[in-house]
Amino acid sequence: KESTKREGGERAMSSSASCEGLSQHPERNWAWRLRSRPKGMLSQENFQWCDEDIPQCHQEGDVLVRTLYVSLDPSSRVWTNAEASYLPPVELGDVMRGESVGVVEQSLNSRFKEGDLVAGASAGWCTYKLIPKGAGLHRLPSPAESGIPSEAYVGFLNFIGATAYFGLLDITDPKEGETLVVDAAAGAVGSLVGQIGKIKGMRVIGICGSEDKCRWITEELGFDGAINYRTENVRKSLGVLCPDGVDVVFENVGGTIFDDILAHINIGARISLCGLISSYNSTKPVPGPYRFGQILVKRATVKGFIVLDYVPRFAEAMRDLSQWLKEGKIKYRVDVVRGLENAPSALNRLFSGENQGKLCVQVTQDSSCSPTAKL
Amino acid sequence: KESTKREGGERAMSSSASCEGLSQHPERNWAWRLRSRPKGMLSQENFQWCDEDIPQCHQEGDVLVRTLYVSLDPSSRVWTNAEASYLPPVELGDVMRGESVGVVEQSLNSRFKEGDLVAGASAGWCTYKLIPKGAGLHRLPSPAESGIPSEAYVGFLNFIGATAYFGLLDITDPKEGETLVVDAAAGAVGSLVGQIGKIKGMRVIGICGSEDKCRWITEELGFDGAINYRTENVRKSLGVLCPDGVDVVFENVGGTIFDDILAHINIGARISLCGLISSYNSTKPVPGPYRFGQILVKRATVKGFIVLDYVPRFAEAMRDLSQWLKEGKIKYRVDVVRGLENAPSALNRLFSGENQGKLCVQVTQDSSCSPTAKL
Repeated sequence: KESTKREGGERAMSSSASCEGLSQHPERNWAWRLRSRPKGMLSQENFQWCDEDIPQCHQEGDVLVRTLYVSLDPSSRVWTNAEASYLPPVELGDVMRGESVGVVEQSLNSRFKEGDLVAGASAGWCTYKLIPKGAGLHRLPSPAESGIPSEAYVGFLNFIGATAYFGLLDITDPKEGETLVVDAAAGAVGSLVGQIGKIKGMRVIGICGSEDKCRWITEELGFDGAINYRTENVRKSLGVLCPDGVDVVFENVGGTIFDDILAHINIGARISLCGLISSYNSTKPVPGPYRFGQILVKRATVKGFIVLDYVPRFAEAMRDLSQWLKEGKIKYRVDVVRGLENAPSALNRLFSGENQGKLCVQVTQDSSCSPTAKL
Repeated sequence: KESTKREGGERAMSSSASCEGLSQHPERNWAWRLRSRPKGMLSQENFQWCDEDIPQCHQEGDVLVRTLYVSLDPSSRVWTNAEASYLPPVELGDVMRGESVGVVEQSLNSRFKEGDLVAGASAGWCTYKLIPKGAGLHRLPSPAESGIPSEAYVGFLNFIGATAYFGLLDITDPKEGETLVVDAAAGAVGSLVGQIGKIKGMRVIGICGSEDKCRWITEELGFDGAINYRTENVRKSLGVLCPDGVDVVFENVGGTIFDDILAHINIGARISLCGLISSYNSTKPVPGPYRFGQILVKRATVKGFIVLDYVPRFAEAMRDLSQWLKEGKIKYRVDVVRGLENAPSALNRLFSGENQGKLCVQVTQDSSCSPTAKL
């Protein structure tokens, strides 16, 4: 398994290591299709590695996309279950679902032309995908013109960025001076949430799983404090770091970490419920927070949200996030695993906490990965 | 233990049985003081039955109140714990806290005169209470003028009514045609919530613990359906009674009943978190709902509230509730236990579900309990 890490902001410019060894024009279409439903942690056995012909456009509206990057997310694990969540499950035999960034190779569609950089969730874990009517695809600015490298669209200028943006700003209505706690704080969403909190003048405490991650979010991203949940008593550390209590919670994890946060919420706290990653691999029912009664006693609001509901407002998030990136107020880190063949094993790294920043697989070579690509 | 049940609305007029055998001028002050903190269900042993002198007014502002009725509520049990909830605990040795309705016996306070009917939470489980500055007391309309019997102020024209009113209307913003599910639906709060839901044009399903209660809420109160949680599979029955899912939940109970409701919530559901009575007697940590993830997947909002936050707006609730009572749109039932000596054992009936409607103790005789008292 090969993995390289790249950092956004200033440091992204000098890095292009991950382009090496991948073909820009593979001769076959490789795809991971779901073979069986995982119990607990998924394994490679749950997928079939398929060697297929590259499809060709022949109907008006067809678009053939070559995948550059596929995003690996906690929700990917949820989609392999038989039960529908907010999206239907991936059916057995289907190509595994995943948001991706790709290049248009052929087009019979007036909205797309060859060479366009595109993104969407309609391709998934495969090298090539024929997308009738270009459904679900949208064009991205060319890296040469915008100065934004294509991997930024895997890193955060996508559903991840929109999740952090709307999940914090729209769901919790944060105020300057309030205290925000976010868990999975070095993750793709959590690291953005904390930075947006800082931009809005909040005191921000992050909870994550290593000293490295704690250092990164405080020293590089500007969080006011960090707690290593593997070595610290989270409840006690929150008491020290949040002497005035917690006004806003951005919840990605659930389980005991969420319970420890609930112990510290203030009257009128707002809790944005974004994810419950601690339970996604569980094979039996998982209890809700033991301190559920705190929601009552503290007159708190817990609001679940799904970023898909915000699709009509995505432009708003992308505009602000791009602007903040240009102003140096947002940094992001992409954890690139090279080669689609590594996707199933790489996905598990989200649950062990091994990834550092947004996890993705680079599928084919990105022509924007050249020494001239500038931020 | 003597108990009589009285129904509000039409049927309240004919009932005055509970006045018999209680003195209008007891010669001693009897009080229940907290002796020890209960573990699990409370027992009489946790309280001390005290025979005390009747206090007398002597400072400017003093008001001496004789208690007519003391309200017994699920929160009473919470206040006997050592941990503060939204109010500080009742201290060992203190008279047990409880909302009450009483009569002014002496007054050195310009706001109150002898014979005034008053209500408040500053007297508690005792026959007489001297209240410096009349703090926390407010005057009620005289039954002779208003036609509203004094027990209505124990029954629902009080914190109970305000809880149902604001907890439904303010917290969940219900819309005509939506489906509302309320549990503890034959209880003091739940029975009002359902009736207010009907007034607002909702489809209302109640969950309660006996066939009698199910009949009462459907046949007398106009609920669209009822589920007996002791004999039915709540999750399945909800599926039958709520074919279009559940839009609004008024949650009094928690535990498995709340989990069964969560299985049926619609996208955008609003959940008013009023109480968690299933856990109040527990001696160990109680897990939150196993279907907590539904809040995320269904983009639901859970909002805890404490009626004390609405004190500045109480008049609004009392105005509407009184009006609806006069229009015959609201019925209430008071479950009167006669004699303060029975208060500790009576309180446990809330947790076994034996009470029918608002549970209270009649402490001394109510002069408004005469054949001429009319609604």
